[in-house]
Amino acid sequence: MGLDDALLIRTSNTLKYEDNRVLMLDRREFPEREVWQRYSTYEQVASAIEDMVIQGAGSVAFAACFGLALAAHCCAGLPNAEFKRKLAQAAKRLKATRPTGEYLVPLVDKMFDLAVETHETGSDPALAVVNTTVRLMEEDDELTRKCGMYASYMIDDGDGILTHCYPGGALLYMLDYARQQGKHARVYCSETRPYLQGARLTAASVHKLGIPVTVVTDNMGAFLMAQGKIHKFITACDRITMDGHIANKVGTYQYAICANYHRIPFIVLGYDGPQTKTSRAQDVEIEERDPEEVLYCRGVRTGAPGVQGYYPAFDITPPTLIGAIATDRGIFSPLEIGRAYADRFSG
Amino acid sequence: MGLDDALLIRTSNTLKYEDNRVLMLDRREFPEREVWQRYSTYEQVASAIEDMVIQGAGSVAFAACFGLALAAHCCAGLPNAEFKRKLAQAAKRLKATRPTGEYLVPLVDKMFDLAVETHETGSDPALAVVNTTVRLMEEDDELTRKCGMYASYMIDDGDGILTHCYPGGALLYMLDYARQQGKHARVYCSETRPYLQGARLTAASVHKLGIPVTVVTDNMGAFLMAQGKIHKFITACDRITMDGHIANKVGTYQYAICANYHRIPFIVLGYDGPQTKTSRAQDVEIEERDPEEVLYCRGVRTGAPGVQGYYPAFDITPPTLIGAIATDRGIFSPLEIGRAYADRFSG
Repeated sequence: MGLDDALLIRTSNTLKYEDNRVLMLDRREFPEREVWQRYSTYEQVASAIEDMVIQGAGSVAFAACFGLALAAHCCAGLPNAEFKRKLAQAAKRLKATRPTGEYLVPLVDKMFDLAVETHETGSDPALAVVNTTVRLMEEDDELTRKCGMYASYMIDDGDGILTHCYPGGALLYMLDYARQQGKHARVYCSETRPYLQGARLTAASVHKLGIPVTVVTDNMGAFLMAQGKIHKFITACDRITMDGHIANKVGTYQYAICANYHRIPFIVLGYDGPQTKTSRAQDVEIEERDPEEVLYCRGVRTGAPGVQGYYPAFDITPPTLIGAIATDRGIFSPLEIGRAYADRFSG
Repeated sequence: MGLDDALLIRTSNTLKYEDNRVLMLDRREFPEREVWQRYSTYEQVASAIEDMVIQGAGSVAFAACFGLALAAHCCAGLPNAEFKRKLAQAAKRLKATRPTGEYLVPLVDKMFDLAVETHETGSDPALAVVNTTVRLMEEDDELTRKCGMYASYMIDDGDGILTHCYPGGALLYMLDYARQQGKHARVYCSETRPYLQGARLTAASVHKLGIPVTVVTDNMGAFLMAQGKIHKFITACDRITMDGHIANKVGTYQYAICANYHRIPFIVLGYDGPQTKTSRAQDVEIEERDPEEVLYCRGVRTGAPGVQGYYPAFDITPPTLIGAIATDRGIFSPLEIGRAYADRFSG
């Protein structure tokens, strides 16, 4: 058991572009079953993103880029103006799938520009998009590793770590680095209703590392803290704002408040840092998903007949509740992260 | 739509003793289906309580009393000493089913004494237990109504009310009284994993009153508070200690912390007040249920293969996080409730 057994550690293990098809490991079925979905149109990819076949801000953005490559492949024979118009439709559709994550819009915009430029030179726009996306996925794996490495310095031997949702590969790198440093941790995964990313994706991945993992329901975190079982609360986030707020899976805010109440640090796995175009928390659009989704669990009805649900998929946690943000550049206070990354504005 | 349509408002609507059988409306199937289970032995009743066929501290205690009546009926022909010995076995078994609620042990002890005394006089001990239990259930309905009435005074027109688990009939009386006072509320039911009492029992009951109700998952409460949707957090509790702590369904503590952070009052529906024999929070035994239960939802596996769960069924909320406790005697600060009920020690 080790890092290589944790399939989700790299997006490239679960998302591929082959023979003008996008292949996705279906995260709604994983880890019980390794089902690969195949898509040949950008609309299918957009629907798959909306339907949670793939999840996580980075993976979703890469999947959308592959979806754009399908559109570019399909339209490659058109004249420049027509190609650009058609591709713009695809880009708009793909960017609208999940509004909260920080990578989706800038990455699709970047690939759109690349495809249009490549098409104008007479080269294959789909190939250009795929090659660039694959390269970015490799860079993403490297920055994920670094983020996990820096975060590992904050782990103490014997730590009980509460997580929420699936924090991505950085959590796994962090746990593995900490173990190499002789620091052994136990992970408590909050199940993360309604899609159960914690109970399934996180729990399975940590288990694959050979690190003890316990699943609890989303209402138990504070009581675990009161019992002294939790020493760090650690999640990833879908967006970091320049003023030090984070948007992450709904429930993160609630645990951050409870961690603060118990004087337990909240550590954010911040990957490549803040979205420099998002200055303030108010600028983040919180995705509201179909209310019916909270009335079901894995296809089984959970809500009483006739009642309605409400499903904000993310929430915002303010910097006052965050102890540290680990990125590929190091460890930052939420109060300094905007300044630390201000160079990106000019970059 | 109104109070009479909400089947769960009175325990007597869902728990009966007929022809030496205990009848229970199966709350694991309700509200989709009204399935009645029938039991003819105390062991069956004990298992049903453990298996969540019935829930709520009051209802569980009454069900156990009926279970004791079955045992008394079965043993009524035995000599006094033998009867007492057999009945003590049954009482012990029934009292061990769910340790956290405050009514179970004292009520079963009381019925045990009654049955033994009645048997010694040559009368029917089962009949005595059943009649007394039915009378106590009627008294319970009346104190539930009063508790709800006092709580209604704290509701304001336009309130968004967050609940957790099923707070019993007092919530329904409270909402109905508030409506009669011209104060209209909206209820947000936290689904309450793993058994979904909020999404099913509470949501269905409030819906039956014709009051708007929305189901959310257990990770959304704090974000609803941040959005300004919640004005009161209201739950019942399974036990109130003399020092003003409450034990209630796990997740109550977490929301109480979040309500406090948002300066939202936490109101406890305290029914007949504290358990006078429980001086301090440390004296409350927190029931830990089978860890496997958190890895399933309505029979469907939710946890990753091979991982373990943890299921503390209740948590403790300190008086510093409680705004008021409504009982059948009025409205109390958690800091005064022990003194207000100190007379029970001598009663």
